[in-house]
Amino acid sequence: LGADGMRAFEHASEYARAAGLLVIADAKRGDIGSTARAYAAAYLEGEKPVADAVTVNPYLGRDSLEPFFGACRRHGGGVFCLVKTSNEGGGDVQDVRLSDGGLLWQHVARLVAEWGEDLIGEHGLSSVGAVVGATHSRAVGEARKLLPRSILLLPGVGAQGASPGDVARAFTSGPASALVAASRSVIYGFRSSGEDWRTGAARDAARLKSEIWAASGW
Amino acid sequence: LGADGMRAFEHASEYARAAGLLVIADAKRGDIGSTARAYAAAYLEGEKPVADAVTVNPYLGRDSLEPFFGACRRHGGGVFCLVKTSNEGGGDVQDVRLSDGGLLWQHVARLVAEWGEDLIGEHGLSSVGAVVGATHSRAVGEARKLLPRSILLLPGVGAQGASPGDVARAFTSGPASALVAASRSVIYGFRSSGEDWRTGAARDAARLKSEIWAASGW
Repeated sequence: LGADGMRAFEHASEYARAAGLLVIADAKRGDIGSTARAYAAAYLEGEKPVADAVTVNPYLGRDSLEPFFGACRRHGGGVFCLVKTSNEGGGDVQDVRLSDGGLLWQHVARLVAEWGEDLIGEHGLSSVGAVVGATHSRAVGEARKLLPRSILLLPGVGAQGASPGDVARAFTSGPASALVAASRSVIYGFRSSGEDWRTGAARDAARLKSEIWAASGW
Repeated sequence: LGADGMRAFEHASEYARAAGLLVIADAKRGDIGSTARAYAAAYLEGEKPVADAVTVNPYLGRDSLEPFFGACRRHGGGVFCLVKTSNEGGGDVQDVRLSDGGLLWQHVARLVAEWGEDLIGEHGLSSVGAVVGATHSRAVGEARKLLPRSILLLPGVGAQGASPGDVARAFTSGPASALVAASRSVIYGFRSSGEDWRTGAARDAARLKSEIWAASGW
């Protein structure tokens, strides 16, 4: 995943955007100063930004993410900040107990809410969203409360084992307030069904969508 | 800093490695599963790895970094994990107070020490190092104690305002145990002196080196 991988990603993204899709680059960027500005410019700005939104890492703090927030302000893009990730080892740092009795990821969730306050649009949602692994269903509900204005990006449904029921709590403030990301379970569904991959992926995506709408109660 | 930037970086790195230099890619990568494996492969493995070592972000925990540790094990590369970064906003997350009375970055330093235990070489140093901003001179000394086997990568001297004296404590266990990274103060020195940039950079690098050796007491 060096320059060649980045080029392939840029082509795939360009194709998707030309087809009218919104693209979220799960790049997990987090850097400082001129490097942060260069990442924000590459992903969200210029004549042909690579994506409509990008995921970022909070470990370096607000000033490291400010260039991304600036890009959102100027160009209407979005940022999803990692808060509670879906992988097993995420707890090594994110679940550390703080002196206030909470966990680190909850502190980060509060920071994300604060960072997003300046970027709330006409429908009450901030351009600064949060990534919360659907594999942690309790955390999804807690994150929803800590981040009332943020779109939650919820990976982990499908190949990583979470179910539509696990993400239901993310939708309590309205259906636009969460995005469920499922990749492998959708794009590789054709392998077990033996169908054409387009047919399989379309059917699996539609099924997941209706299951999530049903579970969310909307 | 999309594919074009990555390509330029790969060329610069290839040039430096061909000249016999060790290259540390300050890429601050942190991702999971297949993406983490692809980053580790691109930076540290294959016929022509991009770099000899790469910086990584600890927020996603041990399993996210395991592919990099595996690459170190197989190919002798190195990893520097962000612990306490030199930027001002780093404290937003890294300086959060934990229930044990310490700060988050100290917890991360202990994790890095633990992650690096399996990768200690014949001279007693681990392939898993740590990034500690020289702008936090007390933290440099504390990190040295928490990470007795890790090479410390110390940015912040020069343009960001830290002095050779600020990094002296990093060298207490031996001169190979720290690397001082200075970029802008060295590569742009010619602008104020009016010299040829090569002459200026060589002189500024040599001066900084001797100042640091003097301050470190070796």
